[in-house]
Amino acid sequence: MIFLDNASTTPCYRVLAEEHQKYSTEEFFNPSALYGKAVQIHKKIEEARQNLLGLLDADNYNITFCGSATEANNLAINTGITKSKQIAISLGEHPSVFEPAIYQRQKSIEVLELPLNSEGVVDENKFKELDFANISLISIIHVSNETGAINPIKELVKIAKQKNPKILFHSDGVQAFGKINVSLEDLGVDMYTISAHKLHGPKGIGALVSKKNINLKPTVFGGGQENRARSGTENVAGIIAFSRAASIKCSSLETDKKAISLLNQKLVDELKKNNLPFIQNSPENASPYILSLSIEGLRGEVLLHALESYDIYIGTGSACSVKKIKNRVLSAMGRTQAQIEGNIRISFSVRELDIDIAKVAKLVAQTAQKLIK
Amino acid sequence: MIFLDNASTTPCYRVLAEEHQKYSTEEFFNPSALYGKAVQIHKKIEEARQNLLGLLDADNYNITFCGSATEANNLAINTGITKSKQIAISLGEHPSVFEPAIYQRQKSIEVLELPLNSEGVVDENKFKELDFANISLISIIHVSNETGAINPIKELVKIAKQKNPKILFHSDGVQAFGKINVSLEDLGVDMYTISAHKLHGPKGIGALVSKKNINLKPTVFGGGQENRARSGTENVAGIIAFSRAASIKCSSLETDKKAISLLNQKLVDELKKNNLPFIQNSPENASPYILSLSIEGLRGEVLLHALESYDIYIGTGSACSVKKIKNRVLSAMGRTQAQIEGNIRISFSVRELDIDIAKVAKLVAQTAQKLIK
Repeated sequence: MIFLDNASTTPCYRVLAEEHQKYSTEEFFNPSALYGKAVQIHKKIEEARQNLLGLLDADNYNITFCGSATEANNLAINTGITKSKQIAISLGEHPSVFEPAIYQRQKSIEVLELPLNSEGVVDENKFKELDFANISLISIIHVSNETGAINPIKELVKIAKQKNPKILFHSDGVQAFGKINVSLEDLGVDMYTISAHKLHGPKGIGALVSKKNINLKPTVFGGGQENRARSGTENVAGIIAFSRAASIKCSSLETDKKAISLLNQKLVDELKKNNLPFIQNSPENASPYILSLSIEGLRGEVLLHALESYDIYIGTGSACSVKKIKNRVLSAMGRTQAQIEGNIRISFSVRELDIDIAKVAKLVAQTAQKLIK
Repeated sequence: MIFLDNASTTPCYRVLAEEHQKYSTEEFFNPSALYGKAVQIHKKIEEARQNLLGLLDADNYNITFCGSATEANNLAINTGITKSKQIAISLGEHPSVFEPAIYQRQKSIEVLELPLNSEGVVDENKFKELDFANISLISIIHVSNETGAINPIKELVKIAKQKNPKILFHSDGVQAFGKINVSLEDLGVDMYTISAHKLHGPKGIGALVSKKNINLKPTVFGGGQENRARSGTENVAGIIAFSRAASIKCSSLETDKKAISLLNQKLVDELKKNNLPFIQNSPENASPYILSLSIEGLRGEVLLHALESYDIYIGTGSACSVKKIKNRVLSAMGRTQAQIEGNIRISFSVRELDIDIAKVAKLVAQTAQKLIK
């Protein structure tokens, strides 16, 4: 199997799954219980918390574990809402930011949709023109799940905070953390979302990282876990596996990124060499983990299914979205309907470093060419 | 180790943890992806859904998987809120119902707190006197997590629906499902909450079961998973393990219950025989899985810690609640402050069927007596 849909999800490393098992079966205690064995588990969670904060260079931040990054994004949006103030999101957001933000319109909150340039990042000139005084929350994705385009978060934070230091700036870092270098202190964001299953951890665990001075407004109430920000018995095994997965990914981040860049570039070169008629939606300086292409005269989904028979798995746009009809992100980048329909997303992990990418490219090109005819 | 705190959490069965691992590492695909391998995973989730609905005798219901039962309870409360209508909850609710309900007061929703009788169940006579026409949602716990007391849900539903068929009736079934016989068709509830980690499944997965005609009002927005009621990449491995854990528990439910009853009764008898000065908070017909006692002249927490040194683990009230100061449930049952402070909760699973309960009782009684002096 050649799995090239890692932006959708990644397999959990077996060693982490085994550790997950240990914390499900043996060290299974409820961290809220009072006996020593439970207190130990509570400590393990705190260690995971500190480890993740360290990896994110986030000394002045807290971390709130959630059931998914989607939930963490919802928590961030909920926290940033202030009566009679606007919120601003980019058109490049994942549905887990876009949808909860748009939902606020039902509560009479004005939601600004920031345009993207053709490279898939927020248009800085248009961003500068915003009436920041009237905005309580800005949420801009760090690395696009569609194209890998990297938003200039640090610069955008600076612009916004200069005009209005009270603005809460959130960034969805799900496709960034563990893949490109992330320092929250440097980015200056107030809130940042991360996910386990995108970096070889288990599904069902995400987190919102937030500056210590921010009072999160919970979306889930109950026993008061996670510093009252997210109640519910902690997913202990998930939290610990998440922390370890992040350690593994971050320890070899730079070398992995270089290797993935080579793989990505080689794939593009070979697709060209094999005369595949495509345009590249991922800009030059995108995260190398995601390569978005649009093939002329072929629907991405058709190619996806054709490649299945060769045991090759690719994506088409965001796989997180059920029943998507059009593609908001590519559309905002000015892509035509034909380009949107011809979109495929190839996303890598280090597990694919030893595949014969030239052979894969040839197969993709030949299959596509047959289908176009 | 003698683990008698199963109402707090249970160890995941190793066979389920192994299957969890399989769906984390090998069958790891995102169920929203379009290729066949992902579609297969989607089918597995649907199978789990149908299996759980079958076990709950809930043909006319849907099931929405959440990151925890706490989240499911919050979803139920959110769904039941209607402007200018009251909601009613019992004083015996778990914090994951009580807190989100009370929070609605901030949104000008009137929240009625239904009293308990000394047996720990909702007072039926007082319940009958409610102005049902003005109520949009009632939430009453099925089996008390504190005492094991079983509320007469079927009767309460009947009373409420007779007066106002539009009322949504929710019950938190976390301590009921897999332990006592549960038929949602028979109970007649509109919504019902279940949890995996209370029945030897993994942590981080719960569900809200709701009648097909109910439009759930999501608390989490995003990619539209779970029929748009709860977005976020599905916790595939958790869902499948949850379903299997429930199958295991339900297949031997009656025999397990009888065996646990014997164990429970024997413990009570032996504690009496060993002259432990206690009153029983769990009523006669409670779920045998939970035994709540109050020991005169001894704080429960002190006994808990003393028993740790014998590798015996018990609980004191709900372990899900961080930093509890008093006990709302026992207080509503009319227990004195001394009785509340002397409260311990012993909760069983079938894994404890081969322990020497007489020996445990003797140890508990002797330890308590030493501490009282």
